[in-house]
Formats: sequence, structure tokens, C-alpha cells
Amino acid sequence: MTTRPALRDPKQDRSRATRQRLLEAAIACLAEHGWAGSTVSVVAERAGVSRGAAQHHFPTREDLFTAAVEQVAEERSAALRALLAGATDPPERDGPERTHAVVDALVSLYTGPLFRAALQLWVAASNEPQLGGSVTALEARIGRESHRMAIELLGADESVPGVRETVQGLLDMARGLGLANLLTDDAPRRERVVTQWARLIHDVLGRG
Amino acid sequence: MTTRPALRDPKQDRSRATRQRLLEAAIACLAEHGWAGSTVSVVAERAGVSRGAAQHHFPTREDLFTAAVEQVAEERSAALRALLAGATDPPERDGPERTHAVVDALVSLYTGPLFRAALQLWVAASNEPQLGGSVTALEARIGRESHRMAIELLGADESVPGVRETVQGLLDMARGLGLANLLTDDAPRRERVVTQWARLIHDVLGRG
Repeated sequence: MTTRPALRDPKQDRSRATRQRLLEAAIACLAEHGWAGSTVSVVAERAGVSRGAAQHHFPTREDLFTAAVEQVAEERSAALRALLAGATDPPERDGPERTHAVVDALVSLYTGPLFRAALQLWVAASNEPQLGGSVTALEARIGRESHRMAIELLGADESVPGVRETVQGLLDMARGLGLANLLTDDAPRRERVVTQWARLIHDVLGRG
Repeated sequence: MTTRPALRDPKQDRSRATRQRLLEAAIACLAEHGWAGSTVSVVAERAGVSRGAAQHHFPTREDLFTAAVEQVAEERSAALRALLAGATDPPERDGPERTHAVVDALVSLYTGPLFRAALQLWVAASNEPQLGGSVTALEARIGRESHRMAIELLGADESVPGVRETVQGLLDMARGLGLANLLTDDAPRRERVVTQWARLIHDVLGRG
């Protein structure tokens, strides 16, 4: 029934596009309606996909939502790295502006729709055993990747005592700032905290 | 039907005890089952109180849960202050041990059942407009009180540039540590981060 061109498979392309639409709709639903309001049917309808097609791609609700959070987390990491690596006028490698830009970018990972969606998933997982396992593993993976990225972007040397824990605390602070932004727009306060802690981090990394 | 002794009113005592049982049951339910699973009926049953009596004390579900989180937050603040003020062998006022004890105590505010319950309420409020107003006001009040307490316990001088933002960032970090503890026991890592950040804070406050 299908014709297979030499270089592309339109059916596979369509399947990939459907999967992508479902993942995007899942994140939007989770951030807006929470776990309780995010069923496969709701997501499928939002994505303009039949429920059957949705279940073909993701057999369970847990599969759909953990895949969605995971993919967006990966996209964000890649975008962050590209942003800082490819700036046409990059701040001086070891200067305070560079440290500020990195801290600011790391914090921004926790204040957008991805964090809102992930937070809904974490909190739901704390009450729903069937979500617990996959979400705990996903959270650990995102945590490790964020740490690795922070160390690399800050050019930090983890063999120096205290550096590892300083950077971990910075990521905990970023997560806390994300939570503070959940109900109200916390941007002006956040900016002041980021400026001050970027200075402190810069000093601790031995560049002050 | 009731007899009123000169000094006490048993009916009022019973009413106060019922209210207290409801508030405690509400926190336990929220931390265990999340907002979706915490109805007034579930809480009343857990407290051993009739649904009618529960509604007499708290006309709406929102009233019950915001009152519960608010009361426990106040109790925790009082306990924390008493703990640090009344230690029989208090760490030297400006020494690094004192700073560590204060940072550790502040962080502990975010890792127990109160934070788990509050987190459920914050996240639910982000999706449910009828919860939004009261929870946003409550969160702001708890945030201000935590900040005031942190400044006082650390003996920090907010007129020094950067001190206010340093302490705010510390509380954001504590909140992030609480979130990291939601799905797994994060105590060993948390202890190392607290030790390092207590050192940083101690230095920034000009005592290093």
C-alpha cells in the first residue's frame, strides 16, 4: 500500500510529526491543568490526533508524560549550550559577566513552562505509586545533566573542595526560584538574587 | 444543656479541640494524597469528626486547607525560634557553628510534612482559580515571615548592600532542597550542600 522513495519515508515522517505534536500538547496540558486534568484523551484532542493513534505511540499515560518532560528537558539543555557557546560576542571566558550570564541562563531553565510541567509531574508522582518509578529515574537523569552542564558552563573545577557543593546549591536555588515563580511573577526579585549570587559564585570559583 | 463553670467553657474547649484535629488531619491528607485526593469528607473522617461539624468550622475546602497550612507554618516558626534561642549550650553568637546551625534549621523548615503539604497546595493553586487568591496571599505571608526570621537568626544587617539578596537566595536554595527531597531521601547530599553554603554565608556576612 505504501510507496517507499529512495531517501525519505513519508509515513515515517508523518508518524514522527504526530509523536511530536502529542509531546508538545502533553507539556502544555500538564502546565495548564496539572496531572489530574491531563488525560491521554485531553492531550490527543489538543494535538488533533485520534485517541487510538495516541495510544499507538504511548501505550500508557505515564509513558506519554515522562517522554514529554524528558524530550523538552533535552531540547532546553541543547538550546542553553548553543546559546552560550555560539554567542557572536561572548563575554570574556573567566569574567564576572560570563558567570552572571551562565547563572542567569541556568535559572531560566527553572522558570518556564517546562519547569511548571515537570513540577506537576514530580508532585503527582509523590502521591501516585504508578508514576513514582519512572518519574524518580527521570528526575535523577535531569538533575545529573543539569549539574554536568553547570560545571562545564561555569568552567568549575570539581577537584577543589567545596566547588561541587557550591554548584549543587546553586541549582537548588534555581529550583527554589522556579517554585517562587509559580503563583506570581517573581522576575524583579529573582533578577536581584541572581545578580548577587552570581557575584558570590564568581568569588568562590576563585575569580573575584 | 451545657453547664458553664466560672473559669472554663467545656463546649468551647471541645470546639477548639475539634478544629485542631481537623487542621492536623488536613495537613496529613494533603501531604499523602495531594489536593485532588483531599476533600472535606476525607479529612473529617480521618479526624473522627462529622462532615457537618467540619463545615461548621470551615465553610469551604479552601478555608480548611489554607488555615491548616497557615497554622502549621506559624507553629514551625515558633518552634524554630525557641530551639535556637533556648539551647542550653548555644553556639557562640557570631561563630561559624552558629551560622551552620541556623542554615540547617532554616533548611529543615522545607523538608518535612509541612512543606510537602504546602507544595501540594501551591501546585493545585496554579491550576485552580478558586484556590489562587488565598494561597498566593498565604505564600507571600509565609515568605516574608521566613525572611524576617532568617535575618534575625543570622544576625544579618540588611543595610549592607547584597545582604538582603544573599539571604533571599539562601531561602530559595532551602525551597529547592525541599523539592529535591520530594521523591527520594536526599539527606546525605543535602547535608554537604548545607555545610558548604553555611560557610559561604558566614563569609559574606563578614565573619569569615
